[in-house]
Amino acid sequence: MPEFMDVHRGMTGITAEALMEAHNADLAIQDEEGVVFKQAWADPESGVVYCLSDASSADAVQRIHEKAGHPADEIHPVPLKV
Amino acid sequence: MPEFMDVHRGMTGITAEALMEAHNADLAIQDEEGVVFKQAWADPESGVVYCLSDASSADAVQRIHEKAGHPADEIHPVPLKV
Repeated sequence: MPEFMDVHRGMTGITAEALMEAHNADLAIQDEEGVVFKQAWADPESGVVYCLSDASSADAVQRIHEKAGHPADEIHPVPLKV
Repeated sequence: MPEFMDVHRGMTGITAEALMEAHNADLAIQDEEGVVFKQAWADPESGVVYCLSDASSADAVQRIHEKAGHPADEIHPVPLKV
């Protein structure tokens, strides 16, 4: 399944607890779109959050993020990996 | 050691081989700054490359990327991870 990296901006001040809650909200409904969120990283200072997932499409990733209440600002397939 | 995500833009058309070469160029000199590049992901279509590393600072990451010939456009510490 293709891999995607998505980026959320404007999350300045995000806490470890808030990141966990947001991630869990994605995990709770990811099966609806066949998405598997694998990892998320956050920088509370700049407010950037990166999420790595396996999904059939960027739209599938975005539908889960939207339903969970935090649409991504950018979603890129990352077919190359080293 | 803190973890960092950096982003390179404008790498449109990057191949698996070019990504590997760029990553290997970082690995070859990363010890000079005590950086450990762990993973890189690329989207040849949008030209975005993400690199995940352990480093003492964003400056250390950038010094390696600059010496290797591909300075990053953004580098963010990612102290939160789920």
